[in-house]
Amino acid sequence: MKRLSPILIVFIFLACNEKVNKDSIKEHPNLILTIKAVNSMRASLGEISLFDQSVEEIRAQVDAEIEFGIEVPIPKDLAGGYTHERHKTNFFTMQKAGVLFQITAEEKYAIYIRDMLLKYAEMWPTIGKHPAEKSYARGKLFWQCLNDANWLVYTSQGYDCIYDWLDGQTREKLNKELFRPYAEYISVENPQFFNRIHNHSTWGNAAVGMIGLVIGDKELVNWSLYGLDIEVPGDIVKDNDGGTIQIDGQKEAGFLAQIDHSFSPDGYYTEGPYYQRYAIYPFLVFAQGLANKMPELDILNYRNGLLLKAVGALINQTNSKGEFFPINDAQKGMSLASRELVYAVSMAYYYGGNDTGLLSIIKGQNRVPLNDSGLAAAKAIEEGKAKKYVYKSIELSDGASGNEGGIGILRSDDLTLVMKYAKHGMGHGHFDRLGFLLYDETGEVIQDYGSARWVNIEHKDGGGYLKENHSWAKETIAHNTLVINKDSHFNGNVKEADKTSGTPYYFTVDSQVQIVSAQEINAYKNIEMQRTMAMVGIKELEKPLVIDLFSVQAPEGSRYDLPLYYIGEFMSSNQKFKANNNLIPMGKESGYQHLWAEAQVDVNGGIYNMTWFNKKKFYSVTSTIESGDTMILARIGANDPNFNLRRDPSVIHRRTAGNTLFANLYEIHGGYDYSSERPLNLFSSIANLKVIYQSSEFVVIQFQLKSGEEYQFSFSLKDNNETNMHSVESSTGKVEWQGTYDFKTINN
Amino acid sequence: MKRLSPILIVFIFLACNEKVNKDSIKEHPNLILTIKAVNSMRASLGEISLFDQSVEEIRAQVDAEIEFGIEVPIPKDLAGGYTHERHKTNFFTMQKAGVLFQITAEEKYAIYIRDMLLKYAEMWPTIGKHPAEKSYARGKLFWQCLNDANWLVYTSQGYDCIYDWLDGQTREKLNKELFRPYAEYISVENPQFFNRIHNHSTWGNAAVGMIGLVIGDKELVNWSLYGLDIEVPGDIVKDNDGGTIQIDGQKEAGFLAQIDHSFSPDGYYTEGPYYQRYAIYPFLVFAQGLANKMPELDILNYRNGLLLKAVGALINQTNSKGEFFPINDAQKGMSLASRELVYAVSMAYYYGGNDTGLLSIIKGQNRVPLNDSGLAAAKAIEEGKAKKYVYKSIELSDGASGNEGGIGILRSDDLTLVMKYAKHGMGHGHFDRLGFLLYDETGEVIQDYGSARWVNIEHKDGGGYLKENHSWAKETIAHNTLVINKDSHFNGNVKEADKTSGTPYYFTVDSQVQIVSAQEINAYKNIEMQRTMAMVGIKELEKPLVIDLFSVQAPEGSRYDLPLYYIGEFMSSNQKFKANNNLIPMGKESGYQHLWAEAQVDVNGGIYNMTWFNKKKFYSVTSTIESGDTMILARIGANDPNFNLRRDPSVIHRRTAGNTLFANLYEIHGGYDYSSERPLNLFSSIANLKVIYQSSEFVVIQFQLKSGEEYQFSFSLKDNNETNMHSVESSTGKVEWQGTYDFKTINN
Repeated sequence: MKRLSPILIVFIFLACNEKVNKDSIKEHPNLILTIKAVNSMRASLGEISLFDQSVEEIRAQVDAEIEFGIEVPIPKDLAGGYTHERHKTNFFTMQKAGVLFQITAEEKYAIYIRDMLLKYAEMWPTIGKHPAEKSYARGKLFWQCLNDANWLVYTSQGYDCIYDWLDGQTREKLNKELFRPYAEYISVENPQFFNRIHNHSTWGNAAVGMIGLVIGDKELVNWSLYGLDIEVPGDIVKDNDGGTIQIDGQKEAGFLAQIDHSFSPDGYYTEGPYYQRYAIYPFLVFAQGLANKMPELDILNYRNGLLLKAVGALINQTNSKGEFFPINDAQKGMSLASRELVYAVSMAYYYGGNDTGLLSIIKGQNRVPLNDSGLAAAKAIEEGKAKKYVYKSIELSDGASGNEGGIGILRSDDLTLVMKYAKHGMGHGHFDRLGFLLYDETGEVIQDYGSARWVNIEHKDGGGYLKENHSWAKETIAHNTLVINKDSHFNGNVKEADKTSGTPYYFTVDSQVQIVSAQEINAYKNIEMQRTMAMVGIKELEKPLVIDLFSVQAPEGSRYDLPLYYIGEFMSSNQKFKANNNLIPMGKESGYQHLWAEAQVDVNGGIYNMTWFNKKKFYSVTSTIESGDTMILARIGANDPNFNLRRDPSVIHRRTAGNTLFANLYEIHGGYDYSSERPLNLFSSIANLKVIYQSSEFVVIQFQLKSGEEYQFSFSLKDNNETNMHSVESSTGKVEWQGTYDFKTINN
Repeated sequence: MKRLSPILIVFIFLACNEKVNKDSIKEHPNLILTIKAVNSMRASLGEISLFDQSVEEIRAQVDAEIEFGIEVPIPKDLAGGYTHERHKTNFFTMQKAGVLFQITAEEKYAIYIRDMLLKYAEMWPTIGKHPAEKSYARGKLFWQCLNDANWLVYTSQGYDCIYDWLDGQTREKLNKELFRPYAEYISVENPQFFNRIHNHSTWGNAAVGMIGLVIGDKELVNWSLYGLDIEVPGDIVKDNDGGTIQIDGQKEAGFLAQIDHSFSPDGYYTEGPYYQRYAIYPFLVFAQGLANKMPELDILNYRNGLLLKAVGALINQTNSKGEFFPINDAQKGMSLASRELVYAVSMAYYYGGNDTGLLSIIKGQNRVPLNDSGLAAAKAIEEGKAKKYVYKSIELSDGASGNEGGIGILRSDDLTLVMKYAKHGMGHGHFDRLGFLLYDETGEVIQDYGSARWVNIEHKDGGGYLKENHSWAKETIAHNTLVINKDSHFNGNVKEADKTSGTPYYFTVDSQVQIVSAQEINAYKNIEMQRTMAMVGIKELEKPLVIDLFSVQAPEGSRYDLPLYYIGEFMSSNQKFKANNNLIPMGKESGYQHLWAEAQVDVNGGIYNMTWFNKKKFYSVTSTIESGDTMILARIGANDPNFNLRRDPSVIHRRTAGNTLFANLYEIHGGYDYSSERPLNLFSSIANLKVIYQSSEFVVIQFQLKSGEEYQFSFSLKDNNETNMHSVESSTGKVEWQGTYDFKTINN
């Protein structure tokens, strides 16, 4: 509080001053900040520790930039390079300086923004398209319009904060010579960028709309909300990620259409949470602007308050460390700590009914946005209102109408299972129908590779997507799902994959048993796949057991590969692997070219069992095996000339058959302490696992623990009516149950 | 405090009771605990939080075991197996129960020990040697005498605590039927175990001596202190780790000889810190017993207080996380948190002059031993006396007289460099003369593999040493040091390696420059190697720069391989590697059979530069190269049928030459944040590195930063007199300096 006293003095001075200058003639800020919000923030300074701390953090950043001086270099570099990073720093800093100017009334912040904008205004007419030619929509400041749109989304906020402070001539100059042409560049001059249904375009729409709101340019606002009435030139059909520019039958564009098409009614975003995190910021920040300046749109209640629901969907797509599930193109490690979520979670708290569970997340973020949402959240935390956010098992539908697949998330404390049967996810989608991920309190147990990319790390092809993203990360064999006859789902064709989705079949959350089950009939022609995963509480085990039943109906002679990307060090198996003395890639295409087969075994006996070790815990998988099955211990890294891929392991279950079932159990057990060197419960508890019935309609498995107890799980694959009776003649006699599933102990 | 009140009531009752029973007739406990210490501990209960907490932790453990019931199974399993772990739990529990009986006076603890001991007494005469036959010295309860000795070291403490409480008949029975025969078994019946100079024997000596002290058997105490007057049978010449049973010329044995021969005057233990940690407990606990019962020995001042100095040496052999340097056979992760160090550090505090820096380590351990040392440390912490322990750069000599090599440790904040030029380390030694390790605050930067072993993890060959420990982990190519002509140092011969040590040449710690330099002339016949490593502060760089000059005098045509086991993901190099599409092992023996060559490049230009990324930080190496040099990116894992080895990477600098110099610079720089995706300082700052003079006597290098500054480092390899002047004609003109080294900026 002592450190804040200069601010308070300024504030008191300013408060008096304002009265003299007449509040009424002030109109700005009115985009994200409002005059009312600014007054509240000023009045709260020194009172709320998390808010004060957030102000001080930003002040330190901006002061360092002011000290460094204004640099507006001629655009040249790709992401990660100097000019790219400089312009990026500039827009972040202008936004922050604007807020600081409003909160502290220190003119140096306004001067900094003005002087920087004048430099941009000077440069703008002199530069053409960015020299790097690789984007489908080249920007001017950056290599792609997307980044130019980022610049404008942030800069328009900074500009709003100094708008009234500027003299009229400067305002006019900036509006005419910088902002209007800038907005035109990323809209009418690049309709292939602006008029899509895509996260890129959301940034474009928000950018143009926000500057339109600031400078009072209704045309820009209209373009942003409703799209351009321009035919996109037919010569640009794909973006750099292979996504198609125009969705078949797409009639609308603009911000409202983005909301209509981008989110499912549950708030799921088809590109996945990594991109949802990226896209949520322009959605929310522009919505905030629209809420302030065009309340008649009632944007926060649009589609039943979908934008705030989307924030909830994002929060639910994280593991116990708050990191997003890396499905589709996603760099691991992106989390609730990101600046976008710092903005989003406070906004969801403020406008979404003050859910005190969100406050614990905000507390974890350890900063708040400097606006009325952030102020309210910080205040509530100061008052001790934060409650633990309770993550629940949920299914999130995909598709604008919610009927195009989805993802199922099962949770039991920190144990988290995610199964994906959503839409493909357009250009950033992976061919991973019915794939799954598993986490516990240590982090990843069964991993999804994520994208092959080191975002912004210039060493790796400028920080952009690597070619291994296509040749490896998107391919089916890179995921924990079934590859049939060596080809990826949809033959690796994005356009085909985009046409359909998986089909949710069953999702239930009981106290002992949670189940997600979904079908996929399009990934391979004339082949039906269905995966049923259950998390069941078993009193003899430390942690819930995961049951995984992958059922497939396909022609005889189909070759199946079911990989499991376990994280950790192989400990032992009940099968005797033969390790290879020379390693050759497992194939030539579809991702197999990136896998080394390190060892394999033609399995025999009733089950495959294997234990691995990671972060002081043991993990086991038990699989039913059939005569002729092979297990392959594989490792990523073949055909990787630039060492772009991690050398992670997997075990691949290979089978040649027709209709079949892969039945697996996953256990998390025991532990090890390095300073006492004592292991606990280091072996699997599963003595046996048997499929006692399987057909296209039903599956029944039994498993026995080493301690003797036997359990039986029965599942109806086609009839999910909860009252229907089922009866099958299994290999151990008649099994009967009511409803979709039955799980119970059995007598020997 | 509330929870402790029952104890206090008991204590008051007991205090009265004792008076009646006459204190004078009580003689035990007198081994580790004393009656006086027990009285102090009782009086302090409820007063000192760390002590109380330690009591409660142990009480919870022991109570759970009492609840579980007494089990004394017929010995059968190897380490990690049921009977092994059960007997191990039993001895730990008896020791703890003894202390609890003394502190709380609750008889249940005494009863538990008595009943368990009676079961052991019953079983002992009925069992022969342990059924597993793999040890050079099979135990009875365990597969090796070593573990039987562990049992006795702990159990004798528990026995001491109930000795006076037992009736005479039971005491007599236990002494005659269990303890004396037990002590005879691990001494006179296994002299190849008892009469060595080795950590195994230290346990044996302590075990026999401690039970001797408890039961008043002077013969046992004499054996323990001075060894057996027995010729070790000549048929057992090596232990299971390949160590020789009898050291050439060894005349003495027993505990005092262990102290004489095991530690250098600096407290360094030739097997390395992992085994020193293991061995320190019997050294200290027996010493404590001797201090209490045979004060005339003045054991804690023996060899200038060497035992306590050894604790200090151990503390100094840890990284910033308190984990021991994994030199020689060592499992990584073993740390100051281990039970041995919990005992040792408090003892060092109490008997070693109350160094308040040690209290911060004890605080970090978060528990204290339940004896007068632990009580004193906990009390001092309660009184706020703890200070940060300041790790300094030090050199620790090896060899009983301190003249057989050593290790050099350079530190600058969390940056820690360790270079090894010690003795071989007997059976647990690795062929790693002049090898080094580097740590920063994230942990390992340049790693030592450690041992190929998963201690006590039964999946991996019962938790013992794996065959890859010999075929890989001990070999020179597994270390960050020079392999010449494909063979490990000393041709991989332990006996040869044991005969000599490296030679310390120079060790200096100045404010800007710290240097360790050592020579090795025995590892390869007629070849002289000298490594000089410096940690230098450079104002333009974030962190000190590490300079590494590996000079070698050898015949023309020698093939050199200098590996660098960097930890992390390869980012980029200035040289264009060609990755291999098929992987074959790099050789057939000396560890090469376990390496895959993933890629290689015939380098050209003046330098090799490479950057890697780990735990959000960037690291770079810059090496001078010569025409014909090859760099190989290698990975561990070939010929590893049971997946016992980690798939870690290295880069190997290969050169064929005669006298030569490998000059390297290591940088730690920048960082990356996953939630903002912004990299900082992600490239090496080194523009150039040149050797401008090299001979067997002098080396001079120059390097230039990308920001333009140039630096020069000159070093005298044969003359370390600090006043002598040196002058050489370098490729850039005359270079002159005084003393062993010179480091300075130079003008262009």
